[in-house]
Amino acid sequence: MDLEPEASENKYAADFPSIKAAQERISSYVHTTPVLSSETLNSMSGRRLFFKCECFQKGGAFKFRGACNAVFSLPDDQAVKGVVTHSSGNHAAALSLAAKLRGIPAHIVIPENAPKCKVENVLRYGGRVTWSEAAMRSREEVAAKVIQETGAVLIHPYNDSRIISGQGTISLELVQQIPQIDTIIVPISGGGLISGVAIAAKSINPKIRILAAEPKGADDAAQSKASGKIITLPETKTIADGLRAFLGSLTWPVVRDLVDDIIVVDDKEVIEAMRLCYNILKVAVEPSGAIGLAAVLSDRFRNNPAWKDCDNVGIIVSGGNVDLDVLWEALSKQA
Amino acid sequence: MDLEPEASENKYAADFPSIKAAQERISSYVHTTPVLSSETLNSMSGRRLFFKCECFQKGGAFKFRGACNAVFSLPDDQAVKGVVTHSSGNHAAALSLAAKLRGIPAHIVIPENAPKCKVENVLRYGGRVTWSEAAMRSREEVAAKVIQETGAVLIHPYNDSRIISGQGTISLELVQQIPQIDTIIVPISGGGLISGVAIAAKSINPKIRILAAEPKGADDAAQSKASGKIITLPETKTIADGLRAFLGSLTWPVVRDLVDDIIVVDDKEVIEAMRLCYNILKVAVEPSGAIGLAAVLSDRFRNNPAWKDCDNVGIIVSGGNVDLDVLWEALSKQA
Repeated sequence: MDLEPEASENKYAADFPSIKAAQERISSYVHTTPVLSSETLNSMSGRRLFFKCECFQKGGAFKFRGACNAVFSLPDDQAVKGVVTHSSGNHAAALSLAAKLRGIPAHIVIPENAPKCKVENVLRYGGRVTWSEAAMRSREEVAAKVIQETGAVLIHPYNDSRIISGQGTISLELVQQIPQIDTIIVPISGGGLISGVAIAAKSINPKIRILAAEPKGADDAAQSKASGKIITLPETKTIADGLRAFLGSLTWPVVRDLVDDIIVVDDKEVIEAMRLCYNILKVAVEPSGAIGLAAVLSDRFRNNPAWKDCDNVGIIVSGGNVDLDVLWEALSKQA
Repeated sequence: MDLEPEASENKYAADFPSIKAAQERISSYVHTTPVLSSETLNSMSGRRLFFKCECFQKGGAFKFRGACNAVFSLPDDQAVKGVVTHSSGNHAAALSLAAKLRGIPAHIVIPENAPKCKVENVLRYGGRVTWSEAAMRSREEVAAKVIQETGAVLIHPYNDSRIISGQGTISLELVQQIPQIDTIIVPISGGGLISGVAIAAKSINPKIRILAAEPKGADDAAQSKASGKIITLPETKTIADGLRAFLGSLTWPVVRDLVDDIIVVDDKEVIEAMRLCYNILKVAVEPSGAIGLAAVLSDRFRNNPAWKDCDNVGIIVSGGNVDLDVLWEALSKQA
């Protein structure tokens, strides 16, 4: 981990030094998450798979890394007024927990269609909830109102340098845990996670391939890559509730330049991957957390000659916050 | 781990040297399982809890440690004829996998009421299945017949020195991972796991308390402790399918002498603990695997002044092999 970064030109919202600084800032608060492996899943995929289990992170998702970095980066005079965000769940819970640790209020705007367990996490960590409609516009309006009333600082779920740097700490850990890693598969939504992971990993070793996994019903990132500009969609339809956001101004350049490919999978594949995570890995994952496994098992990945020599594949299991009844319904419907 | 054992008088079926030897023998085959923790569960219990996740062991349970030690202890001329056992599941799968790794046949007698996922594990690892009735007598008769036909070596699920030594390797890992551990809570059934764990832990530090967790519907160990001799029950009735066996001649002396107390919990508490493991820890556990958490949250433990200063509590999460429909049914019935 003492390697000097080879590709740090400071042209993105985060860089190797900002990610190293984040690691130092948050290290006493976050879990170093374990890496699991399974011979059964290795056989199924024909590779060696290394599951970086962010579902075991505090709050049940990687989001705590970025939120913690953002909250502890704030100068005291700003922090005292609190933080605010709008999020369908994991970022909201993460921000609530980080704010609680710093002893400041967290105002959380939650869309009415958020998963129950994610709302419970926010409440468990002392977040102050304001409800909005599901549409992004309503979420933003309600958040603006909260800011006006409280003076709280908006912490965007992904289009924020501090967030991106925090998420990048996953790569620092993973490369230390599994030095032979040659590929990392990362769920993509707004792009905060994959931006941090890509910048950190490619700084350490530019040969590490970064592949995104995206659900078909919200494949804006794949469309953006294909057309060379940010594409947003009129609507999204996927079981992966954590992957319905669109790329932002800070994450798009990283996705454009540093993400080697985007593997699109359908919900059926995601659900089957959830089942495998549960049955084989013994890990409770949310749909977004299972999509990396779905990607590595998909024909699009297996049959692509470009990825033939991806031998040691890191899979970011991004989170584990799934209502058991949702999991059960999805699995039994498909069985 | 270089400590000299303080209490190794070789009076039990395993001792510190046999457990150290087992660790050396199996280390290239087994996973070093991670230890998880959760502030939420710490708050609920009023202690620091350290979950030793044997559900992530190969085969999804701690049983692989003992099976692996037994199989690789066999001299070549015995090994070549294969191994045989009767087991409701986890030991059977573990023995199948260990035998497969050594390249010898495993004959598995499975009672007809074994959980589906455990049978699937046996088949996945190439075990050769013979069915028996659920009763222990039928299991033993069918196994005897297989031995007669094949000359295979019987590897008992728990009443076997090699098995006990293998399970004891958990303590060696746990004490190294969490040096401040002062208490270990262990599910108890036939007693192989807790015997190994107790001998190893007390050898390293005699002050470490060893507490057993047992389901009310199969509380033969608690009854045995209370009456000073092995008690067996006419029948057992608990959701914890892995905890229905009775103590054996080799495990009883260890349980009698080295286990500080047995905490009996009912199935309702076990199911609630499973729910917490799933929702908070994000880990898929079988009922037997959740019983340690159930014990630490029970009034019998919390209100017992003897355990008031158990501050750093290791909980052996023994396995994760649970059919999802069973989990769902149990949880939804209770909700």
